[in-house]
Amino acid sequence: MAKDVNPPRGNRDFLPLEKRKRERVLGLIVDTYTQHGFQQIEAPVMEDLARLTSGQGGDNEKLAFRVMKRGEELERALADEAGADNLADLGLRYDLTVPLTRFYATNRAKLPTVFKAIQTGPVFRAERPQKGRYRQFVQCDIDVIGDPTELAEVELLNASLDALAAIGLPDATIRVNHRALLSANIAALGVAEADASSAMITIDKLDKLGIEGVAAEMETKFGAEVAERASAWLKSIAGELAVPAELASLFAVVGARHPGKLRFDPTLVRGMGYYTGQIFEIEHPGSGSSIGGGGRYDGMVGRWLGQDVPAVGISIGFERAVDLVGDDMLGAADGLVLIVDEGAEALANALQLQAGLIEAGEPAVRLERRPKKLNLLLENLATQGFGRFAVVGAETPAGGAAGLQIKDIG
Amino acid sequence: MAKDVNPPRGNRDFLPLEKRKRERVLGLIVDTYTQHGFQQIEAPVMEDLARLTSGQGGDNEKLAFRVMKRGEELERALADEAGADNLADLGLRYDLTVPLTRFYATNRAKLPTVFKAIQTGPVFRAERPQKGRYRQFVQCDIDVIGDPTELAEVELLNASLDALAAIGLPDATIRVNHRALLSANIAALGVAEADASSAMITIDKLDKLGIEGVAAEMETKFGAEVAERASAWLKSIAGELAVPAELASLFAVVGARHPGKLRFDPTLVRGMGYYTGQIFEIEHPGSGSSIGGGGRYDGMVGRWLGQDVPAVGISIGFERAVDLVGDDMLGAADGLVLIVDEGAEALANALQLQAGLIEAGEPAVRLERRPKKLNLLLENLATQGFGRFAVVGAETPAGGAAGLQIKDIG
Repeated sequence: MAKDVNPPRGNRDFLPLEKRKRERVLGLIVDTYTQHGFQQIEAPVMEDLARLTSGQGGDNEKLAFRVMKRGEELERALADEAGADNLADLGLRYDLTVPLTRFYATNRAKLPTVFKAIQTGPVFRAERPQKGRYRQFVQCDIDVIGDPTELAEVELLNASLDALAAIGLPDATIRVNHRALLSANIAALGVAEADASSAMITIDKLDKLGIEGVAAEMETKFGAEVAERASAWLKSIAGELAVPAELASLFAVVGARHPGKLRFDPTLVRGMGYYTGQIFEIEHPGSGSSIGGGGRYDGMVGRWLGQDVPAVGISIGFERAVDLVGDDMLGAADGLVLIVDEGAEALANALQLQAGLIEAGEPAVRLERRPKKLNLLLENLATQGFGRFAVVGAETPAGGAAGLQIKDIG
Repeated sequence: MAKDVNPPRGNRDFLPLEKRKRERVLGLIVDTYTQHGFQQIEAPVMEDLARLTSGQGGDNEKLAFRVMKRGEELERALADEAGADNLADLGLRYDLTVPLTRFYATNRAKLPTVFKAIQTGPVFRAERPQKGRYRQFVQCDIDVIGDPTELAEVELLNASLDALAAIGLPDATIRVNHRALLSANIAALGVAEADASSAMITIDKLDKLGIEGVAAEMETKFGAEVAERASAWLKSIAGELAVPAELASLFAVVGARHPGKLRFDPTLVRGMGYYTGQIFEIEHPGSGSSIGGGGRYDGMVGRWLGQDVPAVGISIGFERAVDLVGDDMLGAADGLVLIVDEGAEALANALQLQAGLIEAGEPAVRLERRPKKLNLLLENLATQGFGRFAVVGAETPAGGAAGLQIKDIG
């Protein structure tokens, strides 16, 4: 009896060609970051649930998958009747930033004063599954911890723009704002400081609601006067804006390497509450939504250490980026298939040929027994990325490619 | 206030040099498997808990981390009072084999008749933490699904031995047995067929218990006569054994490429119940325990499809292998550090130099602001794998490496 054989809701399988594309794109991003002097690190997939739900993760905290206690601890928790919250002790990470701040606090004594980290890996969110939203997806972060100066932002933006170019997305641009500017603008609307976060949440919906929609929500929250000022402010923002003094040198320095790639946007919010300075959002003409972002979060790392540690990071949304990357990134099908005739001699020849061809630098030499219907096999192998084949029999010279009749598949 | 900042029990952080070693070792293994015509795939980290606990995973099923239901489903489960088993719907994979069989069943229509898969990735087990046992660790599997012939075994063993050589472990050898031989040997001891699994569990402890210990446990289980025969059988096994007919051609064909690397061991069991044919265990003189293993498991894939599908796989225990690999695998420290003087001109020069050096093929060009104590910084960077440095000031020519005074660190 055949049973249900799907991956869990919101999760995906990756077949060979798709997996190869993902590995190549990820490899190019990591290589670029490495060239810029960043270094890969790795933290566990699970973290203590208390840490994942301590307020650093914003709305994502609600989406954390919870891992149940085990053994006696579970039994005690069940007996306690303290409710569901007491039954889990671990959770799956929903981003790479919260684990990074824990990693830094754990290992600081062994890390350089200015720590430049690359993190890539799966993160998990219990999202309601919908098109383009997955419960497991890859994030791709770089962070600079310990540098209070703008050099950190410069390096992040230069490395990110180089990485995007490396994966064939040279048209990506980065919107930039500064939380201090945003706060000043919000205060100028007449919003009290205590309500600033709430106002940010509304302004963050500008893309979806438009100016009138934002003004309407501002009116509900803060009255007609604030709404009118907000509407006037948003309408005044048009075209290429003058870069404010707070961001002038960042734009000048990054612009020297990547002319025209940064764009000042005074309405940019970035949802997370932990940002304290510059904030970024990566855009691409091929995507309706952002393909990454980040910012400075000086208060967060120090929280586990009891002292201030400056930090800034940027994340490429790998899933959206990889969707934009053309399949030409894979190159032409290049694998070679040796079709092995019946019998021990043919097999011995094929194995010897395979070893020699690999030694000579063939990227992939696959063995297949000769089937009844050769064409079916070849068609199938073409869809797996194999481009050439040769038949190997008892009489085939096993000395190397010279003795083979190599033909293109298809 | 500083808080507890350790990773969860049994989990590990990987710092830059260790992470780099792991990535290089994994990359060499995957490259070797790819050269042999295998292809990477990826399945999710979570699978349905019912699948993970359906009897395929052996003792590992008990070690599955359980992921709690969410939202209304969790509320209903709590109200049901059906017990802890009803509170979780997903689990973390404890191996890559159970997910592979599900993956194959899901995607079979899109896969080649003979599917040759590479899977690498983290797996999770709720082990009692102890030295060398982790709750998250990497497995590294290749499998051939759909080939009933011995060519599949030949390819797995050749590719594995090549991969082990590629990571600097050419002294690895593989013990081989066949479940049919093992069953015949156990029957010959006078053990009833229904007790064969129980006898295998005892024989599997030979390394730990020795012949006398095994005989004692056999006596407890099956009486003195069986114990005596078992003792005699185990004592009769010594030195280099003649390879039985069932394994003769496998030894001959693999031996042609890798002379002396296979060793017949009639007492090899491999714990998992699902093996049906040849079984393997990888050994290395530097390790007291096996560093990998596998075998043929023809009954397992078909279970989800309602039909028989032949399958055979082998796994390199990545954590044990990487411990055996020398740090020379990393090569000499090769990164270049540009120490940037104060001021906008120095920074502009450094950024231009960085871009040019990367373009010219430098693997890693890191920027650092000039600190008060240069030696401390350089020492620290040396431990991160950076080998050279140069100071960049306002007057440094930014045209390329020629204008730089590059010095070795340390």
